[in-house]
Amino acid sequence: MDVTGQTSLPPTVAWSGDVSGALLLLDQTVLPDEIVVLRLETRAGVIDAIRRLCVRGAPAIGVAAAYGLVIATREHLGAAADIGDVMREQAARLAEARPTAVNLRWALERCVEAASAAPSLERLLEEARAIHAEDEQSCRRIGEAGAGLVPEGGTVITHCNAGRLATAGDGTALAVLFHAWSQGIRFDVLADETRPLLQGARLTALELQSAGIPVEVVCDSAAAGLVARGEIQMAVVGADRIAANGDVANKVGTYGLALACAAHGVPFYVAAPRSTFDLAVPDGAAIPIEERDAKEVVAVAGEQVAPRAVGARNPAFDRTPAALITALITDRGVLRPPFAAAIKTMFEDGR
Amino acid sequence: MDVTGQTSLPPTVAWSGDVSGALLLLDQTVLPDEIVVLRLETRAGVIDAIRRLCVRGAPAIGVAAAYGLVIATREHLGAAADIGDVMREQAARLAEARPTAVNLRWALERCVEAASAAPSLERLLEEARAIHAEDEQSCRRIGEAGAGLVPEGGTVITHCNAGRLATAGDGTALAVLFHAWSQGIRFDVLADETRPLLQGARLTALELQSAGIPVEVVCDSAAAGLVARGEIQMAVVGADRIAANGDVANKVGTYGLALACAAHGVPFYVAAPRSTFDLAVPDGAAIPIEERDAKEVVAVAGEQVAPRAVGARNPAFDRTPAALITALITDRGVLRPPFAAAIKTMFEDGR
Repeated sequence: MDVTGQTSLPPTVAWSGDVSGALLLLDQTVLPDEIVVLRLETRAGVIDAIRRLCVRGAPAIGVAAAYGLVIATREHLGAAADIGDVMREQAARLAEARPTAVNLRWALERCVEAASAAPSLERLLEEARAIHAEDEQSCRRIGEAGAGLVPEGGTVITHCNAGRLATAGDGTALAVLFHAWSQGIRFDVLADETRPLLQGARLTALELQSAGIPVEVVCDSAAAGLVARGEIQMAVVGADRIAANGDVANKVGTYGLALACAAHGVPFYVAAPRSTFDLAVPDGAAIPIEERDAKEVVAVAGEQVAPRAVGARNPAFDRTPAALITALITDRGVLRPPFAAAIKTMFEDGR
Repeated sequence: MDVTGQTSLPPTVAWSGDVSGALLLLDQTVLPDEIVVLRLETRAGVIDAIRRLCVRGAPAIGVAAAYGLVIATREHLGAAADIGDVMREQAARLAEARPTAVNLRWALERCVEAASAAPSLERLLEEARAIHAEDEQSCRRIGEAGAGLVPEGGTVITHCNAGRLATAGDGTALAVLFHAWSQGIRFDVLADETRPLLQGARLTALELQSAGIPVEVVCDSAAAGLVARGEIQMAVVGADRIAANGDVANKVGTYGLALACAAHGVPFYVAAPRSTFDLAVPDGAAIPIEERDAKEVVAVAGEQVAPRAVGARNPAFDRTPAALITALITDRGVLRPPFAAAIKTMFEDGR
């Protein structure tokens, strides 16, 4: 483990071999207990892994989907088929795997566009590799951009997992913390456990512990009271999609944390690469919110806790309005309000 | 099951026999899977049951403690001892079992005072029985006072369990819902699961299901987003202690729910008997917040979920400021802001 906290876990997402190769995903559903790497060579396998959250985190889903398009196109390339048609059809099928994270669609559209002039598996793989490499670089830049915001001696809270396990690099929210730590800034972290699937307790705690950063888990519902008691100096989370006006869709529970921070003047940051921004949606209300299986709620860690026959609501995400966000930490620097203008400028500059 | 939803569960708290009898507690740690009634005849057993939350809910703890004082005094009554001294000493020991719920101390002080002129086990048991009977009546009055606040056709959210399992009667927050339902008002309920110990998913869901009231469980962190989406028309919770100014200490997560309701104009009610009010504390900041074992957080339903050696913060309660509360539903009627004056009047009238 180096100073920035490189763990000994296998990569979150990897590709093995050439166009005849396979997608390798670290199965995040069994962490921290077991380290299992899935080797996927069919579209059904890729979609299932995305739906079951074996791979999760908007940037990691994007990279996985890009590689998945190589697999799906290869699988459905009959003798008589036009590879361009197959590629577009398979991209549409993969895009349906999950509705909220925009990186999924963004990565697929980018691969289709890149290969549209001269479609080939080689060109698709090349573009997937480019998205993968850019995500690593984006994470690094997010870390650099945000490290100075971390208060020396303070306590930082984060929600869900926006780390190495959510990206192809050092993460988004956690990249900020890894980078600050490597610069000698010292702080404590509270990881919201993040019900129902406990990505905070399982994944964020694992990443921070591996990096030697002090971390304690808290129930999601405890955060507001701790903020009120002055025990938290900063919040930083990732994002699944950011609208043109700066509204953020992220893991359910993000909005409640943002409300508490706003009520007590604690800065609330959202860290995400440019690929998480979706200028096609004007505001958060236009972002679809995935509703997942009630079983994730009524059973905890595989064990039924609610009475039989009692159901559940299980929205996987919520929307945090831009007005509650102190700044957006991106791979193009820190954006401050008014976000609509700052986001527009970022996209114009990036052309 | 009658129209008000009487379940076939054993009583939450009961006393068996005369002064040589035993305290019977329905063990709430194993519900809804198992129905186990604890028979307690020692002080150590009573304190352990309160600490492990076999009995929980401020009013139920008060009743259990009152009966517990009969047991503890009987147990420590040596030949040479003065029963008055023993009773006072044992009340002090029992009062230490849990720090936040005021009903524990209130019930013990009331029993000691009632028996101080002519201390005897009979007098202590008589007072415990009186507290028990008054709690049943308080629940009924709370239900009557609050039923009209429940919106026909609406969705009501509640946090933790403030029902039959939290009192010696029909509950506090849930008494409001049971009474509204029995009057023909129809509504849906969302039960916050209430991590870490899942009293909402286990106990509230069980009580409402048994009463035939439609109930679904939600993760605590999902409530804010659902409130924002207009899916919730009312929130009602219980209380562990209410300060003289109307600030409320209740199960951790209550404050976050209140913040979300306030942000979206959803009425937020707190239901509690007069015995939950503590005029000795001027405001919420003066109410001690119990911090419980980290294991409740890092292990879910008995299974370790966080990496080994990762700890947790586990405040069992939080404080909701009076400004976020629409009304206090009490056994003396519905109190509206300004609460300090309304609470003062309630105590003056009750003398």
